[in-house]
Amino acid sequence: MKIKVGIIGVTGYTGGELLRLLINHPHVEIKKATSRSNSGNDVTQVHPHLDKEISLIEDEMDIEKFITGLDVVFLALPHGKSAPLVKEIYNKNVRVIDLGADFRLKNLDEYKAWYEVDHSCPELVSESVYGLPEIYKEKIKEKAIIANPGCYPTSVILGLAPLVAEKIINLDNIVIDSKSGITGAGKTLTQQTHYPDMNDNLLAYKVGSHRHTPEIEQELSILGNTNLKINFTPHLIPMNRGILSTIYTNANIALTNKELEKVYVEYYQDCPFIRLRNKNNLPQTKWVQGSNYCDIAAIFDERTERIIILSTIDNLVKGASGQAIQNMNLMFGLDETAGLKFPGLYP
Amino acid sequence: MKIKVGIIGVTGYTGGELLRLLINHPHVEIKKATSRSNSGNDVTQVHPHLDKEISLIEDEMDIEKFITGLDVVFLALPHGKSAPLVKEIYNKNVRVIDLGADFRLKNLDEYKAWYEVDHSCPELVSESVYGLPEIYKEKIKEKAIIANPGCYPTSVILGLAPLVAEKIINLDNIVIDSKSGITGAGKTLTQQTHYPDMNDNLLAYKVGSHRHTPEIEQELSILGNTNLKINFTPHLIPMNRGILSTIYTNANIALTNKELEKVYVEYYQDCPFIRLRNKNNLPQTKWVQGSNYCDIAAIFDERTERIIILSTIDNLVKGASGQAIQNMNLMFGLDETAGLKFPGLYP
Amino acid sequence: MKIKVGIIGVTGYTGGELLRLLINHPHVEIKKATSRSNSGNDVTQVHPHLDKEISLIEDEMDIEKFITGLDVVFLALPHGKSAPLVKEIYNKNVRVIDLGADFRLKNLDEYKAWYEVDHSCPELVSESVYGLPEIYKEKIKEKAIIANPGCYPTSVILGLAPLVAEKIINLDNIVIDSKSGITGAGKTLTQQTHYPDMNDNLLAYKVGSHRHTPEIEQELSILGNTNLKINFTPHLIPMNRGILSTIYTNANIALTNKELEKVYVEYYQDCPFIRLRNKNNLPQTKWVQGSNYCDIAAIFDERTERIIILSTIDNLVKGASGQAIQNMNLMFGLDETAGLKFPGLYP
Amino acid sequence: MKIKVGIIGVTGYTGGELLRLLINHPHVEIKKATSRSNSGNDVTQVHPHLDKEISLIEDEMDIEKFITGLDVVFLALPHGKSAPLVKEIYNKNVRVIDLGADFRLKNLDEYKAWYEVDHSCPELVSESVYGLPEIYKEKIKEKAIIANPGCYPTSVILGLAPLVAEKIINLDNIVIDSKSGITGAGKTLTQQTHYPDMNDNLLAYKVGSHRHTPEIEQELSILGNTNLKINFTPHLIPMNRGILSTIYTNANIALTNKELEKVYVEYYQDCPFIRLRNKNNLPQTKWVQGSNYCDIAAIFDERTERIIILSTIDNLVKGASGQAIQNMNLMFGLDETAGLKFPGLYP
Repeated sequence: MKIKVGIIGVTGYTGGELLRLLINHPHVEIKKATSRSNSGNDVTQVHPHLDKEISLIEDEMDIEKFITGLDVVFLALPHGKSAPLVKEIYNKNVRVIDLGADFRLKNLDEYKAWYEVDHSCPELVSESVYGLPEIYKEKIKEKAIIANPGCYPTSVILGLAPLVAEKIINLDNIVIDSKSGITGAGKTLTQQTHYPDMNDNLLAYKVGSHRHTPEIEQELSILGNTNLKINFTPHLIPMNRGILSTIYTNANIALTNKELEKVYVEYYQDCPFIRLRNKNNLPQTKWVQGSNYCDIAAIFDERTERIIILSTIDNLVKGASGQAIQNMNLMFGLDETAGLKFPGLYP
Repeated sequence: MKIKVGIIGVTGYTGGELLRLLINHPHVEIKKATSRSNSGNDVTQVHPHLDKEISLIEDEMDIEKFITGLDVVFLALPHGKSAPLVKEIYNKNVRVIDLGADFRLKNLDEYKAWYEVDHSCPELVSESVYGLPEIYKEKIKEKAIIANPGCYPTSVILGLAPLVAEKIINLDNIVIDSKSGITGAGKTLTQQTHYPDMNDNLLAYKVGSHRHTPEIEQELSILGNTNLKINFTPHLIPMNRGILSTIYTNANIALTNKELEKVYVEYYQDCPFIRLRNKNNLPQTKWVQGSNYCDIAAIFDERTERIIILSTIDNLVKGASGQAIQNMNLMFGLDETAGLKFPGLYP
Repeated sequence: MKIKVGIIGVTGYTGGELLRLLINHPHVEIKKATSRSNSGNDVTQVHPHLDKEISLIEDEMDIEKFITGLDVVFLALPHGKSAPLVKEIYNKNVRVIDLGADFRLKNLDEYKAWYEVDHSCPELVSESVYGLPEIYKEKIKEKAIIANPGCYPTSVILGLAPLVAEKIINLDNIVIDSKSGITGAGKTLTQQTHYPDMNDNLLAYKVGSHRHTPEIEQELSILGNTNLKINFTPHLIPMNRGILSTIYTNANIALTNKELEKVYVEYYQDCPFIRLRNKNNLPQTKWVQGSNYCDIAAIFDERTERIIILSTIDNLVKGASGQAIQNMNLMFGLDETAGLKFPGLYP
Repeated sequence: MKIKVGIIGVTGYTGGELLRLLINHPHVEIKKATSRSNSGNDVTQVHPHLDKEISLIEDEMDIEKFITGLDVVFLALPHGKSAPLVKEIYNKNVRVIDLGADFRLKNLDEYKAWYEVDHSCPELVSESVYGLPEIYKEKIKEKAIIANPGCYPTSVILGLAPLVAEKIINLDNIVIDSKSGITGAGKTLTQQTHYPDMNDNLLAYKVGSHRHTPEIEQELSILGNTNLKINFTPHLIPMNRGILSTIYTNANIALTNKELEKVYVEYYQDCPFIRLRNKNNLPQTKWVQGSNYCDIAAIFDERTERIIILSTIDNLVKGASGQAIQNMNLMFGLDETAGLKFPGLYP
């Protein structure tokens, strides 16, 4: 029996990526999809690469009707738009995986401070789990609401988790310099992401004010059992997919690169999508393009006694839709890798 | 029982693409691989995106030993290098799919004129078939040697075949303007394909002298039962994958765009990898990126009574490794689409 | 005494390019600029690369006030918007260089057919000259209204002019395959020119229906003293600047490549911005990036007795703002190259 | 009287850029050029964008003959190759601007440790000056040997100098995350900089071991009158030109963004090529493309009490050839901006 899936917000890049990945998922049937802009039309109209792979007319948005007969709904919506829908879906006993931000922050004051809106269903926040399978695998199996992590936080938290959990680094001085391809900025047109303005260009943005900051701080604080603050600076890179986070930390103890590598090997021994790299084999974003892998290298710099971590993902896969499917697999008792075990596209 | 596969010349882009596609092929076991530069090392050393997907130490190149136990060998070698190996493999009753140029031209004088070498085993040319499944499906099932088509010819012949076969166009005046991503030029380093020289740049090359010219002429002449000549101009485009061939022809008869579309629909009705587009939905290379599809639109221009055809493929998939696997499927009595039925990566 | 210049429509790419080029023009003083979106602000707000090079607060749009004290006005506006302004400027005896399309077509029925509007001041069309200095140098010196050519037509007409004028080619069978960088599509946001949709992508558009078609036909017909039709297919290339037009023609006479080159050398002997290339030195768009050069190679293909011409320009310079300044130089009796004699940016 | 200039190592990107910039320099005559690979040929053979702008046959390399009649020589050579030539040129009383690394490090043990060769003329190191005009303007006017700074150090030192000099930051905890376009890796072919391997890709390299590290440490230590160590991580970005250095520091004092900006305004008040940006106007590499500007923004992050600095240059201009010419101007008593006062190319 296949899992019956619906997608709300299917016209964006993450919506298209959900379709691409679910089409060949051995245990899934894509039953329904909808969006504000394309209802009544086939999903291939906005996703022409899926022509001959799927044919699915988008429903009008009537949430009650939409979820009838579904086992799980993926939400790919702007922040603030998910929460009310999650409530309705949850109340009908349908599971929901929210690719948006509404259920990621557990502290609702933080949510309000960073997102500048009140949360519309605070009572459900505790019913949700932060859907990072490498850390919350058991909880994900039990919960009905998954808050799928942000793209930057996925790369950063996976890069730092072993060091924070094992208390190998000083938690007062974490600097995170993240670089993202332009699909991370979404499908909405802006002057900055107009081709001529972005091609052969490079910039930092939202210095000190990106909304993924509290998400990273929340998760690292939990892992480190403290209340830490980080510096996080995102950058736009003239490429389509991929995030590279370069993370600078102070080592608490002197350790060799061998020992450092061992910390990661042990921490991630049961994680099929983590690939460990090293100093002589530094991760490149293209190596994970189109795949659900997260490639990580941690390097001990003897001169400065710092550890520098490099962590790469495809922002649309492990940073969004692939991770959402990994979460779905866990929720439904499937192998975590079902439908996700394929290499990326290179070069 | 799985087909036991070996790959010779595995380090190039088409070699890597064969691995990527065969890893998840349901009826294939990748048994062996070899190359000049990497023997003794794992294939993931030069194809890091395949890490955790495959582990395969490359053999030293001893052809007799190499083919023992194999059902089929893929050759991804420069022209002139395949022919002697094909002979040895053929003589041992192992099937062979040659992604190089050595068996594409049936007229050996043409081969010598364009490739500037004598063919080393002319007696086998008639044992081979030009491996374009949309045209030679039945022959491919019977032959032991497949001459896998060139990337440009694949896009061009598929774009023109219905019109040539149905005698809708004047065969004296075919102009082919092809544009290719840079992986088409291979992995070998050149100044022209050095990143700074190629980025944000655009050029034609080998005007009137590209070796895919006689290949296109041969196949169109067979289809049209004539002896035609074409103009073919290849261009390099600053992108990785994809070919767009823009083809200009004179219509023999006046016909509507509807009628024109019907010619293609009928001609390609049994072809799972052909997707027909039209004037309002012109093909884009990114729509086929990473997939085995060939997207085609033919447009009748009333002002000039010409037909303009646009044909797109991913040069490494339908233009090379995907087509090779499609051929393998046919050779071994499998469904043509086995292991190849997935959408491309977009955007 | 410096020429006092005003720019209307200064916020677009061609507006920014006019500023960039005029800032260092030895005989120009940029007096005024205006636009719909930025009046009251400094031009560097939308052109941050010009910071510290110029400071100029944009005027409100009041045409009478605007032109007071000016010697010449550059118009960089969408078609249909220029004509009424040109009339007012002309009536005040100020010269005007229109970078838009309104005065390019001499046949107003053609204008209406292709642009789908009536011309608002047909009486001034005969007062204007098509501003291609390599062909109309003398007329440009005498006229008060310059219709600055389109980017594609500039590359195409310069590529073909010697052959058409010298009657070396058959005028019934001209195929023009043009490729443009994305600045050619302007600064207006569209899904197609959103970075992720355009990066690593390639497409043809407006097949048989691009508005530069009648402009090319008009000028080639005048040169050839006939009434010809062409096939013109524009393509979008993932790069910022540059046009490459690949032009296919039938030779009327057999001629060597040497002889062919001589035709061009003689025709363009007094043209400082034409650079002739050849078969072994095919033009690349990056070689003209940022400069006012047009690089051309013509090749006789013996196999097919066709001549293939490759013509490259920077669409924002020789295809727009640079050519506009070249026209201004001629209008004011200056050396054609004043302010334009510099190499492009490479790589 | 014009300055008579010679260039050794003219075929690389910085050589081409010297030509591009010197061609229109009002006080320079380019007399001679040479290189290992192109002697006897015109410089436009390897720099086709300079066609019609310059014609200059490259000399054979005979240093004594070469410098005869010259006022200054630019050296654009790999490290270790400059030092012996500098000695010969210096001994003939010709001034020399070395774009390579040989005279940048004052501590020869450091030079040996990082460059793994002995310095071939240690006695001349004290005769040279580190050619960063914003800091060493007066010394540059007096010295005969200029050690032109590295591209990364230029962006980093200019970004930090005011804060280090004014003791506003803690010098123990400086993290520098630099991103460079691919021309920074030079013209030499490598697999990593082959177009398909680099396009749409992103990576860090030489983590903790890049040779620009001691250069940055030397200059910041001098400015801060201390002996500091930094973390420096370079990255390759899929674009041609541009460096963005994102620099993380701990503030010693609380200060507003206004106050912070004032520190920079005062420090750089006499520096024509420094443009100060801010939080709402963050620097982008394309804004400096092709120009000699360095754009800088410094931001005080209240949450973490850190200062984040963003500093952008064109690595081939302010990071190499433009800065070399700025140094030449100072050496010969010209205005610092002679030949360099033009905007970059955008977009």
